[in-house]
Amino acid sequence: MKIQLINPNASAGMAQLLDKAGRRVKGPDTELEVLHLPASVASIEGAADGVQAAFHLLPAVARGQAAGVDGFIIACFDDTGLDAARELASGPVIGIGEAAMHAASMLSVRYSILTSLPRSIHIIERNMSAYGLDRRCARVHAADIPVLELERDPAHYQRLLALGREILQNDRSECLVLGCAGMSQWARPLQDALGAPVIDGVQVALKWVESLVSLGLGTSKLLSYRAPLQKHP
Amino acid sequence: MKIQLINPNASAGMAQLLDKAGRRVKGPDTELEVLHLPASVASIEGAADGVQAAFHLLPAVARGQAAGVDGFIIACFDDTGLDAARELASGPVIGIGEAAMHAASMLSVRYSILTSLPRSIHIIERNMSAYGLDRRCARVHAADIPVLELERDPAHYQRLLALGREILQNDRSECLVLGCAGMSQWARPLQDALGAPVIDGVQVALKWVESLVSLGLGTSKLLSYRAPLQKHP
Amino acid sequence: MKIQLINPNASAGMAQLLDKAGRRVKGPDTELEVLHLPASVASIEGAADGVQAAFHLLPAVARGQAAGVDGFIIACFDDTGLDAARELASGPVIGIGEAAMHAASMLSVRYSILTSLPRSIHIIERNMSAYGLDRRCARVHAADIPVLELERDPAHYQRLLALGREILQNDRSECLVLGCAGMSQWARPLQDALGAPVIDGVQVALKWVESLVSLGLGTSKLLSYRAPLQKHP
Amino acid sequence: MKIQLINPNASAGMAQLLDKAGRRVKGPDTELEVLHLPASVASIEGAADGVQAAFHLLPAVARGQAAGVDGFIIACFDDTGLDAARELASGPVIGIGEAAMHAASMLSVRYSILTSLPRSIHIIERNMSAYGLDRRCARVHAADIPVLELERDPAHYQRLLALGREILQNDRSECLVLGCAGMSQWARPLQDALGAPVIDGVQVALKWVESLVSLGLGTSKLLSYRAPLQKHP
Amino acid sequence: MKIQLINPNASAGMAQLLDKAGRRVKGPDTELEVLHLPASVASIEGAADGVQAAFHLLPAVARGQAAGVDGFIIACFDDTGLDAARELASGPVIGIGEAAMHAASMLSVRYSILTSLPRSIHIIERNMSAYGLDRRCARVHAADIPVLELERDPAHYQRLLALGREILQNDRSECLVLGCAGMSQWARPLQDALGAPVIDGVQVALKWVESLVSLGLGTSKLLSYRAPLQKHP
Amino acid sequence: MKIQLINPNASAGMAQLLDKAGRRVKGPDTELEVLHLPASVASIEGAADGVQAAFHLLPAVARGQAAGVDGFIIACFDDTGLDAARELASGPVIGIGEAAMHAASMLSVRYSILTSLPRSIHIIERNMSAYGLDRRCARVHAADIPVLELERDPAHYQRLLALGREILQNDRSECLVLGCAGMSQWARPLQDALGAPVIDGVQVALKWVESLVSLGLGTSKLLSYRAPLQKHP
Repeated sequence: MKIQLINPNASAGMAQLLDKAGRRVKGPDTELEVLHLPASVASIEGAADGVQAAFHLLPAVARGQAAGVDGFIIACFDDTGLDAARELASGPVIGIGEAAMHAASMLSVRYSILTSLPRSIHIIERNMSAYGLDRRCARVHAADIPVLELERDPAHYQRLLALGREILQNDRSECLVLGCAGMSQWARPLQDALGAPVIDGVQVALKWVESLVSLGLGTSKLLSYRAPLQKHP
Repeated sequence: MKIQLINPNASAGMAQLLDKAGRRVKGPDTELEVLHLPASVASIEGAADGVQAAFHLLPAVARGQAAGVDGFIIACFDDTGLDAARELASGPVIGIGEAAMHAASMLSVRYSILTSLPRSIHIIERNMSAYGLDRRCARVHAADIPVLELERDPAHYQRLLALGREILQNDRSECLVLGCAGMSQWARPLQDALGAPVIDGVQVALKWVESLVSLGLGTSKLLSYRAPLQKHP
Repeated sequence: MKIQLINPNASAGMAQLLDKAGRRVKGPDTELEVLHLPASVASIEGAADGVQAAFHLLPAVARGQAAGVDGFIIACFDDTGLDAARELASGPVIGIGEAAMHAASMLSVRYSILTSLPRSIHIIERNMSAYGLDRRCARVHAADIPVLELERDPAHYQRLLALGREILQNDRSECLVLGCAGMSQWARPLQDALGAPVIDGVQVALKWVESLVSLGLGTSKLLSYRAPLQKHP
Repeated sequence: MKIQLINPNASAGMAQLLDKAGRRVKGPDTELEVLHLPASVASIEGAADGVQAAFHLLPAVARGQAAGVDGFIIACFDDTGLDAARELASGPVIGIGEAAMHAASMLSVRYSILTSLPRSIHIIERNMSAYGLDRRCARVHAADIPVLELERDPAHYQRLLALGREILQNDRSECLVLGCAGMSQWARPLQDALGAPVIDGVQVALKWVESLVSLGLGTSKLLSYRAPLQKHP
Repeated sequence: MKIQLINPNASAGMAQLLDKAGRRVKGPDTELEVLHLPASVASIEGAADGVQAAFHLLPAVARGQAAGVDGFIIACFDDTGLDAARELASGPVIGIGEAAMHAASMLSVRYSILTSLPRSIHIIERNMSAYGLDRRCARVHAADIPVLELERDPAHYQRLLALGREILQNDRSECLVLGCAGMSQWARPLQDALGAPVIDGVQVALKWVESLVSLGLGTSKLLSYRAPLQKHP
Repeated sequence: MKIQLINPNASAGMAQLLDKAGRRVKGPDTELEVLHLPASVASIEGAADGVQAAFHLLPAVARGQAAGVDGFIIACFDDTGLDAARELASGPVIGIGEAAMHAASMLSVRYSILTSLPRSIHIIERNMSAYGLDRRCARVHAADIPVLELERDPAHYQRLLALGREILQNDRSECLVLGCAGMSQWARPLQDALGAPVIDGVQVALKWVESLVSLGLGTSKLLSYRAPLQKHP
């Protein structure tokens, strides 16, 4: 099966991190392709950035669909353009924020999210509520580190670890969701240090898209997720 | 005050209808400008169309903001690009779907929405839930008439009237919200015929943006609705 | 159009403050009448006070309706007697609490309310929940200053400013709603000082009632808001 | 213990029915007093009626409190003036709507409500939501029989039985709540005929007030339900 | 009437405390039987313990039903096996957690729960949400004292009192629910000391089961709470 | 990895069906073991059956944990004993109901559930609500075919197909979840016939447990899902 993991921003560096993370866990039958979108924004930090990114995401999904891609992962924790991408794909499309929240709900009674910037909190909260997964979430926190900084500087790990401890204690949470693709690399060390599941949505989304494809399950094309109509005014 | 009413699709015909509706009700001190977006999609019927439209909407809002526009109305019932547009404006930005739902909540104990296409229902429901205004909404219905058809053919009025009657009765609703800018023109005749408030979000949004501007109230720029950052990878 | 702004308590001083606030923002075509209810309670601080006030409010609304008043504002943040007043009016009736919460939802991702007395918090929370607008509200706070004290002593401004700062920070809110008509006068200075929208429901309600009247929209008389029946046992 | 069951409307006939119902089930140590309020409305059919009734209810509760009444039942399914009455009482105050909904939640997985007039539905729904008991309620129905008619004409029983059957089947409900004090008398025959619990809130409320009084539990006077303050402008 | 109060754990000591509490408040016509389940777990501290306890609870309920018991109380704040027990009984079955939450909702605008172990919090929260009674609950706290310790050591009272004070203040709650049958004995002294209702679900559940039985109300046997079918593979 | 798929009832026939379904989709590195519980109930049709089944489930999970099983699936759509099983396992434990609902939320805007018996509906609804996944679910239906009948008689397929068509249309749903392990075998033919995703929770749960295990993610043992304590009265 061909799976496409799309980083909806313009960062080739981020795409490389995602590629490493994906290849570590992909299935033996999976041909994994990791893309970034050079014409998109440098990073997604807010709703306007999200609109830009979604605009560039859709043609990439359309091209993937035409080239026989079986399933897609949108690798931004905001789940940028998720519903729109589903209209263009016949296979499953999962966002990493979505996947992480679902996984946290299966592994703990209560989880918290730690994302990068405070201004993204409301977007994550809105998605969480649409999925119904706010029921199990204690709170969404921000480390207040810009997305691109996260990618570059390994020193941020210590801050995330300290925050993670504080969050689990204050929120009475039992699982931590990393709320930014750029934090993926630290999921396992954080988990070992904190003694609680630390979820990287990138890896969960990849395995779950593989799962759904292997079961012959894809996006419903019954009505709402059909391809957009061609219209002439 | 300068108010901009933006039709986020490419239909000049729709923009004309909106302009007529706006001029009928605008305040004496309001300089009203009605735009459509020629590079956008012909009509918005789904999430992918919405991404396209939002992409073209944002520069229009940015230009308006630079030109001193005091407030904006997004004239698509899906409230396309609403949060993103708020990042670019200092004045208020209101979507016509949002405005109509708020108004319905002040005028009735229970309301129903009648939109154009069934595939848009989930988008409207998701917005309504984000606003909390699903509490007072019985149900969202679709007339199953494409948006561009609505604009062109006055014969659709009879169908809307018949549907409106059925909906108010079956849903036990006491107010009908027209869920598509293209239905604006029929709000008043429908209201007279049905004997219950029929809300056109275009006119409500315009008056409410004027109101907020006149009170010196605008979009909060404290954090989440700040302009996007300039970033360099 | 004739608009009536009713202070449902007995304070002529409060009515004067409301009259000043109203005249500053009313539309050129609006004939504004501001009333207080001398037979009502001195101030509304709890549900029993609310019952008293509502009892005196209804005849005032009925008289206004008979005299051709086009729209009403109930100027108590508890939205005292709101549903009952709607039964007596054909035009719109909006409560200042309701209006403020709706406005805050259009201008920010998250807002907080600052009211006068702690004992009123549960009433406001109950209304907010009925409107669905609790979705966007972080928390309701009380300054712990009796309503009549607020009216009299300008020194309370400093306390409100300090509380406002604390609230926006601790709640991660981006808009502050003033939860008592007696705080109206300070909305603009607080907004300038805090750098975030500060909403006075009195002015928003007035403009929105004017708006709805100008659009020919009024309270639905289909069923639930019909005038009470005359009954003989 | 002295328990007061207050019919908040002016119907002496209704008070007699309530008195019969109460005496059938009251505890041996209970001194039961049933009142109606001659100055109140003839029947409560809407929010404006509710304001009238609440206004006359409060002095009755105050007199009862002064006379050492240990607990109160408000015998209108709308739970008229409930929060206000709690401010005046030190013992428990329960509304019959409230009691019936709580009981239904303990006896079934899903229940429906059958009230008298359609225009009361929104009031009941709003209360139910405030209590959180809408979770277990399938739907609120109205028999469309005016309250005073119910009292007078025993022929209405057949209609209620037919409606009850229909409701249990269509709603998939397993318990029926009678949504009007005037239906009390038919609770047991309906239960026998329908083969499912049929709840009369009057009797449940009475037994539960007795229960709470016997346990030394009363309305919290910590803050929100304190007696209203005396205020002088 | 015969009422059975079942302690679903193996503690005879707990059963004695429950028996004392029950006899203090039971009605004159009530024949009260208090059981513990020697084959069950020593105490219920988590979901696996709950499964064990429920397994042993059901035959006890079945035996009681066969012996003509009119109503049952499950005396574990987790409401262990509640829905299952209802399938085996024709009379009412109430859990002490359930009863306490319902009572708190009738006596205060906001309540908090204080249970024994932190690990039980999620179980209580889940129940509360199923009942809809989370609406009125500020927060669930744990004293972090094992259930069996509570039974044995009266010194824990001081800790509960200190916690109770803190909770009412920080949560802005006006009623405290004791979240463990082992705390029953301290309900009245805590209430006197805190000046707010302190609810022991054991006593409330007992009185309410007596109430429902006296009104001829029992568990609905229409469908979901029918006895399990006999099946042969 | 060793994965255990446990049928919590006594049906060896059901276990065989599950085994076939599992082997069709399991990963190459997965050693799959499918169990039934001979001492359990013949089938789970209600809460009392669920208590029985959970009681027998837990030792099976404990034995699996001791034998190094990496992850568990509970193959009853009621998710019998889910939280309890999690206390005994270090790896992930997923219920098939849970898995199916999560998958449906990722593939459609709205889904419906078709289970076997009407009496199970409330159990599924309660779980769905606890997961927050009721947000996306239109309705839960029952085919009214006993679980064991489903296993035996292939003729039931036609009935399920007809019901599926009706459900998708009436509910406006775009995905169907099969609400009983006994329906697993028909997922693919139903999907082909209905033209919408038809989800069998057995296969989804298996792939997702494999996924989580492969990512080193397991049940949080921080607090609430810890193994039960050993206690001595």
